[in-house]
Amino acid sequence: MKRIVLLRHGESTWNKENRFTGWTDVDLTTKGMAEALKAGELLKKKGFHFDKAYTSYLKRAIKTLNYVLDGLDQDWIPVEKSWRLNEKHYGQLQGLNKRETARQYGDEQVQLWRRGYSVAPAALSEDDRRNPRFDLRYREVPDAELPRTESLQDTVARLLPYWKGEIFPTLEHANELLVVAHGNSLRGIVKYLKNISDEKISSLNLPTAVPYVFEFDDQLNLKEDYFLGDMDEVRRMMEIIANQGRSRED
Amino acid sequence: MKRIVLLRHGESTWNKENRFTGWTDVDLTTKGMAEALKAGELLKKKGFHFDKAYTSYLKRAIKTLNYVLDGLDQDWIPVEKSWRLNEKHYGQLQGLNKRETARQYGDEQVQLWRRGYSVAPAALSEDDRRNPRFDLRYREVPDAELPRTESLQDTVARLLPYWKGEIFPTLEHANELLVVAHGNSLRGIVKYLKNISDEKISSLNLPTAVPYVFEFDDQLNLKEDYFLGDMDEVRRMMEIIANQGRSRED
Repeated sequence: MKRIVLLRHGESTWNKENRFTGWTDVDLTTKGMAEALKAGELLKKKGFHFDKAYTSYLKRAIKTLNYVLDGLDQDWIPVEKSWRLNEKHYGQLQGLNKRETARQYGDEQVQLWRRGYSVAPAALSEDDRRNPRFDLRYREVPDAELPRTESLQDTVARLLPYWKGEIFPTLEHANELLVVAHGNSLRGIVKYLKNISDEKISSLNLPTAVPYVFEFDDQLNLKEDYFLGDMDEVRRMMEIIANQGRSRED
Repeated sequence: MKRIVLLRHGESTWNKENRFTGWTDVDLTTKGMAEALKAGELLKKKGFHFDKAYTSYLKRAIKTLNYVLDGLDQDWIPVEKSWRLNEKHYGQLQGLNKRETARQYGDEQVQLWRRGYSVAPAALSEDDRRNPRFDLRYREVPDAELPRTESLQDTVARLLPYWKGEIFPTLEHANELLVVAHGNSLRGIVKYLKNISDEKISSLNLPTAVPYVFEFDDQLNLKEDYFLGDMDEVRRMMEIIANQGRSRED
């Protein structure tokens, strides 16, 4: 049996402030660090020995991975970083508070921007300082591939070449892989792995720092998938995330 | 102009307890983390933009690198880890207090173990639990290459293939590289780069977490090397390290 564990980064400063983050490179909160360390310790207790780990170019995912490996006492595991695992780009919404945006544009519109499979927020202008073309870390990415905004469909389109070309083939000669990324880039992977429809994927809300295990047989067919940890707590966290874009508390 | 920065990890728990560490995978102290973060901030202030970073399989170096990249705000830099950058293996001395060992065996013998170029401490036995052959992280290294003890000469012999085959050639198509490793593995690299004699290398004592910059011209000839930071403090730290294996305080 072979396994891939997907992990959403721990709480970031903008998770806490309930702002659209996207490609903004915000840090983890202290709670986020603790969540990551705890996830590592849980994976250790469950006997995971990863052959390789993958993460994005964004520090909230990279630092989550560092803390997970430290909690596992497997700091030495090889790590590969790719911009293709980055969060969905939120265009001009990046930096705005989700609840305030909902008050201004309505719950329905915000829900579409957050969860409509082929809906993208307004794009960043070419001279916007937030445009990824100004960021040194993406200098080796062809400009035509660098997004100014994305729908989840766009995120999946730039993510899958990396999943299909790098991560998944590694499983042929490895037993356990770890992928630490973001709410939407991971939803894209889960949609692909479980063949979830464009409509249904909108209701999947991944909790932060809860290991999501995918088991494959030796022919790399998916056999089972499950979250590690206390399922009541996992469900509670999923509900909190689903409600972040509503204008009023439930 | 191209640059390689060598950095010795920040203070570890066994640096603090003055014990021979070698391949023992001890953690950083809080001071060690702060030193690393400070080194990253200094490198940022000096305008470094690394293309790639290298480190060992030992967490005190890996975590130092993580903190340095975070201080630089360049967490996304690709990182490659190799056992060949590990500290000199200290054989049966690993775990012993340096000062107590000096009291038992004499200052001269301890100085030989620490700094004699071709002198290795007694080897670990095959069934010693500290033998690297029991450690999962080295499972892909041929057993004949895994040390049970090392002289600095042995360390250099297993280190140079990685330096010559991986790190240095990368400089042909990169401008700035970072290598975070250990007191003795870095002494081996410095000895090679500056063509220092077997005798003279014994008096080089690298301070923890002080960036040591090597500048090369476009033909990769070494032009200059210097420490970054306050030179008085650097010299003071070098003296402290030189005196760690003496039976009495100076």
